[in-house]
Order: sequence, then C-alpha cells, then structure tokens
Amino acid sequence: MKKTLVAALLATTVAVPAQADVLVDNVTGITMDADGKVKRFEALVIDDDGKVAKVIGRGEDRPRTDYREDGKGRVMLPGMIDAHVHVMGVGFGALTLDLSETNSLEEALDKIRTFAAENEARPWILGRGWNQEKWGLGRFPTAAELDSAVADRPVYLERVDGHAGWANSLAMQAAGITAQSKSPAGGRIETLPGSKQPSGVFVDAAEELMRKAIPAPRANERDLALAEAQKVFHRYGITAVADMGTTIEDWQAFRRAGDMGALNLRIMSYASGPEQMVLIGGSGPSPWLYDDKLRMNGVKLYLDGALGSRGAWLKRPYADDPGNYGLPLQTPAQLRNILVRAAQGGFQPAVHAIGTAANAEVLNAVNEIAESFDGDRRWRIEHAQIIDPVDLPKIAENGIIASMQPLHQTSDRLMAEARLGMDRLEGAYAWNTVLQLGGKLAFGSDAPVEPSDVFAGYAAAITRMDANGQPFGGWLPKERVNREEALAGFTSDAAYAGFAEGRFGRLLPGERADFILVDRDPLMATPEEIRATKVLETWVGGRKVYDAD
Amino acid sequence: MKKTLVAALLATTVAVPAQADVLVDNVTGITMDADGKVKRFEALVIDDDGKVAKVIGRGEDRPRTDYREDGKGRVMLPGMIDAHVHVMGVGFGALTLDLSETNSLEEALDKIRTFAAENEARPWILGRGWNQEKWGLGRFPTAAELDSAVADRPVYLERVDGHAGWANSLAMQAAGITAQSKSPAGGRIETLPGSKQPSGVFVDAAEELMRKAIPAPRANERDLALAEAQKVFHRYGITAVADMGTTIEDWQAFRRAGDMGALNLRIMSYASGPEQMVLIGGSGPSPWLYDDKLRMNGVKLYLDGALGSRGAWLKRPYADDPGNYGLPLQTPAQLRNILVRAAQGGFQPAVHAIGTAANAEVLNAVNEIAESFDGDRRWRIEHAQIIDPVDLPKIAENGIIASMQPLHQTSDRLMAEARLGMDRLEGAYAWNTVLQLGGKLAFGSDAPVEPSDVFAGYAAAITRMDANGQPFGGWLPKERVNREEALAGFTSDAAYAGFAEGRFGRLLPGERADFILVDRDPLMATPEEIRATKVLETWVGGRKVYDAD
Repeated sequence: MKKTLVAALLATTVAVPAQADVLVDNVTGITMDADGKVKRFEALVIDDDGKVAKVIGRGEDRPRTDYREDGKGRVMLPGMIDAHVHVMGVGFGALTLDLSETNSLEEALDKIRTFAAENEARPWILGRGWNQEKWGLGRFPTAAELDSAVADRPVYLERVDGHAGWANSLAMQAAGITAQSKSPAGGRIETLPGSKQPSGVFVDAAEELMRKAIPAPRANERDLALAEAQKVFHRYGITAVADMGTTIEDWQAFRRAGDMGALNLRIMSYASGPEQMVLIGGSGPSPWLYDDKLRMNGVKLYLDGALGSRGAWLKRPYADDPGNYGLPLQTPAQLRNILVRAAQGGFQPAVHAIGTAANAEVLNAVNEIAESFDGDRRWRIEHAQIIDPVDLPKIAENGIIASMQPLHQTSDRLMAEARLGMDRLEGAYAWNTVLQLGGKLAFGSDAPVEPSDVFAGYAAAITRMDANGQPFGGWLPKERVNREEALAGFTSDAAYAGFAEGRFGRLLPGERADFILVDRDPLMATPEEIRATKVLETWVGGRKVYDAD
Repeated sequence: MKKTLVAALLATTVAVPAQADVLVDNVTGITMDADGKVKRFEALVIDDDGKVAKVIGRGEDRPRTDYREDGKGRVMLPGMIDAHVHVMGVGFGALTLDLSETNSLEEALDKIRTFAAENEARPWILGRGWNQEKWGLGRFPTAAELDSAVADRPVYLERVDGHAGWANSLAMQAAGITAQSKSPAGGRIETLPGSKQPSGVFVDAAEELMRKAIPAPRANERDLALAEAQKVFHRYGITAVADMGTTIEDWQAFRRAGDMGALNLRIMSYASGPEQMVLIGGSGPSPWLYDDKLRMNGVKLYLDGALGSRGAWLKRPYADDPGNYGLPLQTPAQLRNILVRAAQGGFQPAVHAIGTAANAEVLNAVNEIAESFDGDRRWRIEHAQIIDPVDLPKIAENGIIASMQPLHQTSDRLMAEARLGMDRLEGAYAWNTVLQLGGKLAFGSDAPVEPSDVFAGYAAAITRMDANGQPFGGWLPKERVNREEALAGFTSDAAYAGFAEGRFGRLLPGERADFILVDRDPLMATPEEIRATKVLETWVGGRKVYDAD
C-alpha cells in the first residue's frame, strides 16, 4: 500500500507545490564533495522542495521521513551534465525518420509509410540514413517509388553520407523543380533514364535546391522536439546541459515548457550571437527560472570552423593542404567588441575555437580585456581542440574554462593526424595538460554532432581509446584524466562552468536532488564496462523523470 | 507600532510568498457583481495570496485578520482596466522630454540640459513639444543653440505639432546631414541665413532623415520604459491593460519584469501580427503567468487606417474627399487566412477596424469563419468606430466584442463630421447601440494616442461631451451609456474581453485584490466632478503600488 503511494508520488513529473520528504536508502552513492574530492554515501534525503536535505554515510542514522525508497544497492551518481549540446538539434534529430537500419527499398518504403501515418500533423516528412548500395538496388531510388509510400505530403530523405537527398513529387513541386531545372555548380539533379525528367535524387550542391524549400519548423514541432530532446538526455542520465547557440525561437520553446511545468532538464543557455543575446536576456543574464531549470547565461560565438572541413584557423598551414591556414570568422576588433559588449552586461562569453590560431586569438583577447572587468567572469572556450603548447598556460591565467568533448578526440583522431601531421599534435585535445596547468575543464558531447553518451565520453576521457579499444594504450595517453577528474568534468565542473555550483551538479545538502541510478560504479569498472553502463533511473529535482523499465 | 508594521508590509511591491491576511475597513466600496449589477460594500478581506477573501456589506461582522487598514471612508473601486493601450508606447512617451510648457528658448535649453544630466545612460536625448512662436523667437532655433545645452550626445526634439524636428550637431552627424544634403520631396532641411549650412531644423518629410538615424531602444531602455508605463497606469488607477501589438522585444521586457518580480500591471497581450503571435505564443496562447499578471491572449491585426488621415476604409467615399474610400490593409483572403490561423491555435483575434467597409468586412469574415470553431472565441474589433447601421446587429451574432475608446469620440467629433458628413453619423461610436443590440463592449484609451485617463473616458462615456462640456447635451447623445455600463466597460467587461473574468476586474471572493481608492463616487458625482477624480491609492494583488501622497 505504502509502496504504491510512493511510486505514484514519485513517478509524476508535474511540478506540485507540496511534496513530502523522501529517504532514498540503500544506494552505492558517489558524488564530488565540496572540497573537490569524491565522497561516498549510502542514502539521501530529499526535502519537499526537491533538494538534497541530507547525505547519509555508512552506519549513520536514517532520519524519519514521509516515504522511503529502496535503492536496492544500485549505484547513485549526480545527474550528469553535458557542457556543450544543441538541445533543439538533438530534439529534431530524434523526430527525424532514421533509415540507416533498412536493408531493402521495400523495407524503407514500409518504414516511411508507417512513420508518415504516425506523424499526421507534420507538414513535411524528413529523414536520413538510406543507402541504395546496402539495399542492393544498383541505382538511386525514385520520386515515384517514394510517392507510393507517401503522396499526401512532401518527403525529403538524406542519404547516409549526407551527400544526396531523395524527394517525392510533392517535395519537388514545393521546391519548384521541373524538367527545366538546371543542376547547380557542384551538384546534380538526377534524371530518369533517357529523359530530362528529374528522378527525385539530388546530389551535393543540388541538395540545397530541396533544403531551402523545407519550411521552418512550427512552434508545436519545436515543443515536440524539446520534449524529445529531454527524453534523449534523460535516457543517457543527463539532467542538465549547456545549450550552445540558443535562438529566440529555442528560448521561447524552453519558456513554454517551463511555463507549463514540462521542463525537466536544466538548461544553461548561451545565445546564438550578440543580437539573440540581447533579445533573449535584455541587459544581462536572466535569473535562474523554474527552480533552477533555465538560465540565460551568456553568448556563444564562432571564432573559426572545424578541422574536418579545414575551417579551423591554424598558425601554420594544414599538413594535408599546404597554403591553407583555415579562416577566422571574426576580425580581432569584432571579437574584442563582442566580448566587451557581453562582459559589460555580465553575460558569459563562450567562444568556439578549434585551431591553434583561433585558440591563441581568444586567449589573447581575453587577456587584454579581462582586467577591465571585475568579478568572476568564467570566460569559456568551446572545443579548445588544438592549442599551441606555448599558449596552453594562458588558459589558467584568466580563469578560462576549456569546454571540451572527449568523444571528439576518439572520432577525430585519424583526421587530426592527417590535417596537422604527427609532429603538431602536442596540445591536441589536451585535457590533462589544461588541468595540470591550473585551468578549468568542463566535459560535453556537442550532441547531436556526437551522441550525448556520457559514459562513452567518460571512458574516452580516462583512456584516450575508442569503443574498439583503439589505439591500444590510448592516443597521446598523457592527456588522459583520472576517473575523479572525469566525473567532475561531467558533474561539478560542468556546473561551475555555467555558474550553477551550489545549485546542482553534486549531491550535497541544499543542491537540487538530481541523480541517476546506474548498474555499475564508474570509479571501479573497466573502461569497456563503463561504456556499457545502463542508466536505470534519472531523477530531476527529487522526481523521477526516466525509468529504464 | 502595529500601524507601522502594516504600512511596511503593504508598501512593498516585491512579491513574497507569504503575506498575512488584511482587512481593509471603512470604505465606500463599489464593484460590478457576478450578476452584472453594481454591488456596494464597506470592507474587504485580502487573503495571503493577494486575492479577495471576503466582501463585507453594511452592518456585517468583520472577521479576525492579522492586520486592519482604515479606508477612512474613501471610495474603493476595482482596479480600472484599459482594454486598448500600447504599453511600451506609453512608457517611451513618459521617458521623453516634454517641452510643451516652456515659454522661452532659454527655459527650454535649461530643461534640456537638466534632462540630459539626469539621463546619463541614454545614448540619444529625445523630446517633443517645443514651439518657437510661444517662445516669441520669431525664427526656428538652431543646432548651435542646442549644442550649448547638450554637446556630448545626439539630441532630437519634435515640434509641438510633430511637423518639424530640431537636432543638435551630433544628431545631424549621426544622420549624415551636411551642407550637401538635399531636402526630400514634401520636406525641407532648414538652412542658416545666407548659407547652405543646415540650421538644425527639419520640416515635414525631412524629419524622416533624422528619425531613421535614431537607434532602436536598448534592452535596458525598454525595461525602463515598462517601469515608467506601470507608473503612468497606476497613477490613473489602472491595474490591468490589453496591450495591442506586442512585439517579441516588448514581450521579453514583460517577462524580464515578471521574472524579477517587478511586474505590477496585469498585461493581456495581443501580438503584433501573425509572425509575432507564433514567436511569442507558440502553438497557442500562453498560460496566465506571474499570478495572473501576464498572458499572451491573441493577435492584433490592422484592417484599415484612421479617419483623420482618411485611411479608414469606407463603403462610400469621404465627404471631404470625393472618390476616396480609404483602403483595406488586408485582402479578404488574407484577413480570413489570418483569422483562421489564429482561431486554429486558440488565439483571440483583435482586428483594428475604423471605417464602415472595414467593420462590415470583419463582421462578415467572422460570421463565415465562426461556425467552424467551437467554443468561446470572443472575436474582438478594435475601435469599431464607424459602423453602417445595417451591420450593427452582426456584432451580437457571433458574440463579438467591440473594444472602443470613449475619448476618441470627444477628440474626433468635428473631424468625423467633416470626413463623413452629418447624415452618415448614425452608427458612429455607437456604444449604446452595441449594448442594446446584445453586443459586448470593452472600454479603453488607445494610450499613448489619448491619455489613459480613465475617469475622463468614463465621463465622456456617460455624456458624449468633452472636457469643456461640448457639445451641450452630448454628441449623438443616444449613444451615451449609463454609469453602471461605463463602470463595467472599464472593469468587468474589459476583463471579460481578455478572458480574465473570475481572475480580476471585480472585487469578489477569489478574484485578485486589485483596487483603487479615489476621492469621489463615480456613480454619484457630476460628470465634471468625475473628470477631476483623484486616484489616492492603487493596489495590485493585495499590495499597494501607488500612493498619491
């Protein structure tokens, strides 16, 4: 009887003003402590505000509470924090039809038909992942074939590699594609054999002809995407994120969810550039809203591009493209101007910098500007991937936070070797060096670019090896961090990077009761085991928001 | 001792979760009752949520409360509601330097100098109201004279009639005005005697050269404007408004105030067109936010212009401009499309319609559309100024709300006679006919177009006479409403027009304790006395937000 009551009480995700206090007993609890060390505990008391009231160690007395929840000895960790994501990108990704597992055209058409039927309200059906080679088709699929699955709405599906797209007739009509349409430079409108009639497949630059016809998502689709994103993060055991590049449309979706009591993910928002910063925040960051579920912290800026596309801005040319240094996306004056404007308003700047020149530039700019501003600014560099070793000490000088993504290292490894050459990798993904020099680290995933799989990221952080154990012994293994540092990077240090310390990120009295129950101990398990961690339950503010069962 | 405590408790405008219950005793209380009749009372109990707990009639027992406030026999009315304003327009107006009372150039320069010194953070100094004739100057003032008052920032001041503007040198520099600048068609850049040098004054169309140089307000200026607007409304005894044409920038200012606990005016927001509607509201109206202080209700549309500029769309040509019918601003298809989009999302449309053709068009469009939508839609026509008598019965047919502004009638009277001719005034500002035919009325001011002086509006509503008692006996006096109807128009009916009935607008148990104390009884005083009503105190949600002393 009592158990049913507890379950009913705890299962709800709707905010109610009054909530009883709860003892979650019999857990293998792990958290970063106030002194930055790991603390272990056996039970936790949640107060009626959804905060941690008490953390109970081995052999300590349990207080009287209204309810008791048996943790059954499972491992309790603080809710994980992903310090660099694109919330709405994750949500829209989750709403998109995934054809990557299909093995024939027929199977794909069935899947498309079913998806369209299940998503009647969507004006366009969008998807990705098809591969005519895997299907054994020997040719591209056609618009007519796609029409046979969905004829009442436009459909547009990207190929697995993103280099081609497959449209149905209504989609081509919406894009104004006819037999008279010309292929653009760098692209090709495929045609039916022996005909000028477009077949339905658009290659490379021709994809843009279709993409620009896809309408911007409607408000209800944004709301749906946010709901989906929350589910994705909760499944991974993530209870808080930093959203990098929030637009006013994104912000409005966050607020709608907050207003309706449907926001169960803590979002630290960084506006997409200075105009959105002012539109969203006004003359400064927002207050913490909805019981610490949402705050507009600052502004995301791009100083360069990515290594893969050779957009990252380097001090010396690309090893595999002599003469190419990549490109800065802001002039020195622009960067300083935006940093000053942000800092004047108390906004926290988060600057995307990948290449050595970009990282040097932002480090120098902050150094020039920082002394004009009092207080605790926590300038952030996002990615901070390839830093010239001579610049690395500058990270600590102004209390700069390096917001880094362990899975980028394992994904990028071979590409980084090609772009830079083996002799220029000192200072690449230099997590440990950042810490050893006194810098601050925050870990994230850059989802949806990488999956927000925090235990895969944790395993990469402590091994510098990928899911296949490659390379054996780890890539530049001196840049491994230890298990405690990795845990802090995904919890307390990620909270600090967003001015959220004391609010969430640790299981200490007064902080929000955000925690997860998992099936193994990340401080004890092997890296392979850690990658296979199963998140059993996710709790936000003392309420269960995900249960694997 | 106790009195001090009460005063300290009640004077605060900061939201605190717990508040004691308060008896406000010894008042001449007046409110519309649930049955639409006037109810009188002697005391009121406010509960700890800032709602009315009890309304106490003559001779009834007073309950025990934590505090007692003596109303000293003053008249208590529900907080007034202005059903049509532009909140930020009122606020920016209040932030603008007013030179209309100055009697010499020297006096004006002193006032400008003082205003600039008191408003150091403002990048531009803006003002209005100067008149070189009143100053006895015999010429326009010059930029050099203005520079002598303010040389560190651009200054731009509009003449009393709005047909000329006066700039200082920095303002002209910002606008790129030089001796080579040419006067545009329909305007004139004044020059110094015997010189091509611009003197600093810009006439008619040339004003645009200056206006376009004035930067959009910054977020902190918007916040300041909202704070000023709240003060203006509170001084007039207004506790709630319908904001007609909210932009996302306006909305963000409202939310910032709400988030900071600084929103003390209830705002029913109508977005500025369908794009802002979706951006602000998403797929439907917002919930009531901040304890019923803010809701995004629907969308404001313009179907025509105004009578004065002959933009109002008429069935027959203007009497003083044969051949001119005015103009619709939406095609029939556009209007219906927007109304349907709004109604599909549950948004309340509020359509600006002034002329006979515009009013007929919106009445017909609603009639065609209404049957497709269930529920209580409360389609609003804003202004509804000149309605063809044959169309008047259509207002009641679909429960349409005529949102009308009594002061427009007294201001527009002579102009309306000129534009339409004496024989076409049946159906002009037809307040009483709307009510008699079973339509709904909501009263407002259109501030800052007219002052939001609700007691002047009330006096006009019951007399059809202006502040000078003109015309004697009232203009088309059959369209007067009675005192009870006028009170309802500015309280309970204005709340109903914004879906706020039961939340505020009446002093009944369960509604928000929004009330004012005034120095006379609007149901008893003469119209002249009513115009001179002094608002002594204004209370919102059980807290005093304005005290005349």
